[in-house]
Amino acid sequence: MQRGKFITFEGSEGCGKSTQITRFLNLLESRQIPFIQTREPGGTVVGEKIRQLLQYDPETRDLCDESELLLFAASRAQLVRNVIEPTLLEGTWVIADRFLDSTTVYQGVGRGLDVETVKRINDFAVGETRPDLTFLLDLDVEVGHARAIAASGGREDRMEAQPMAFFQAVRSGYLSLAGEEPDRFAVIDASAEKDEVTASIQSVFQERLGGGA
Amino acid sequence: MQRGKFITFEGSEGCGKSTQITRFLNLLESRQIPFIQTREPGGTVVGEKIRQLLQYDPETRDLCDESELLLFAASRAQLVRNVIEPTLLEGTWVIADRFLDSTTVYQGVGRGLDVETVKRINDFAVGETRPDLTFLLDLDVEVGHARAIAASGGREDRMEAQPMAFFQAVRSGYLSLAGEEPDRFAVIDASAEKDEVTASIQSVFQERLGGGA
Repeated sequence: MQRGKFITFEGSEGCGKSTQITRFLNLLESRQIPFIQTREPGGTVVGEKIRQLLQYDPETRDLCDESELLLFAASRAQLVRNVIEPTLLEGTWVIADRFLDSTTVYQGVGRGLDVETVKRINDFAVGETRPDLTFLLDLDVEVGHARAIAASGGREDRMEAQPMAFFQAVRSGYLSLAGEEPDRFAVIDASAEKDEVTASIQSVFQERLGGGA
Repeated sequence: MQRGKFITFEGSEGCGKSTQITRFLNLLESRQIPFIQTREPGGTVVGEKIRQLLQYDPETRDLCDESELLLFAASRAQLVRNVIEPTLLEGTWVIADRFLDSTTVYQGVGRGLDVETVKRINDFAVGETRPDLTFLLDLDVEVGHARAIAASGGREDRMEAQPMAFFQAVRSGYLSLAGEEPDRFAVIDASAEKDEVTASIQSVFQERLGGGA
């Protein structure tokens, strides 16, 4: 049984990640590639409870940066061992909306926590599991932020209420990771029209993974 | 304003920690020393939700070791920043039922996770905050286990259902930490009668912290 491919999508608010993931899943389906989709934090019983703590609980607005990072990592550790690894071993592909790069940039670069420590905690959480391919949907932060706010009807959630410098640091952090691992990352210009972005993604998919053949 | 003292109690199942903590708090009260008590995991809104995940949720029995460690650390990070540090700064003492040594031994030594990584995650979680004094209630593991099961009416919780070698590793781990930091730790023989154990604790309290004077 050939191991499934593990593909992650990363990018800042408003980069069009959800739309592009949906289209990518449609592409896999049309090629009869078996897959599952995961989301972070979440994807397991524990993970979904952690997701609730991190995003929707008004009582946890005062969550400290360290606790936030550790909760993301806890959710991910469980997801990797209970879902991602067993699925890949069965030959099924795993498509993830955010994975360890999100933590590195949002908690490390964005929040100013020590990046080496963040990476070490990440490594501990995921063990040997790494994506085969990571699409980074890159976008100017002001454009992305405006898009995200508009999409949520003007309501800002915990992440979106951050200052603009935070998002700038996140974008730079992502681009720097992509520079360190060019074989794993594909940086996609997300300022283009949706169909163009989709075409870029499909072209990388063809080049790097032979279109799943 | 003099900073409060931070005192932790550690020890395996059945070592009599709860009883001795209660007596110690009574002692502090009789000397008019202001204090709060914390417990781990828990002690904050986030922490209590994490406690529930770790101990009482039947759906999370399959929690992986890495996630367990990260959840403990997340609870602790929040507790240190929102409760312990502000309280000590006000001159109030903090008495903790378990703190970072528990994680080091239960998750590191007991579960076989890399101890250096566990310590590093601990350090990240607690920052500069360390106990001024740690009472380690040391006890033969078979005696302790039998006491713990008896006390819970024969019902084993998630931790108590571990094999005996686990508890042996925990005991050795605690003693090894105490050996590394003799100034912080006081190892108390918990096999003695309750009143004798209390007397030993009070004697250390007098010698090391001048009885709080």
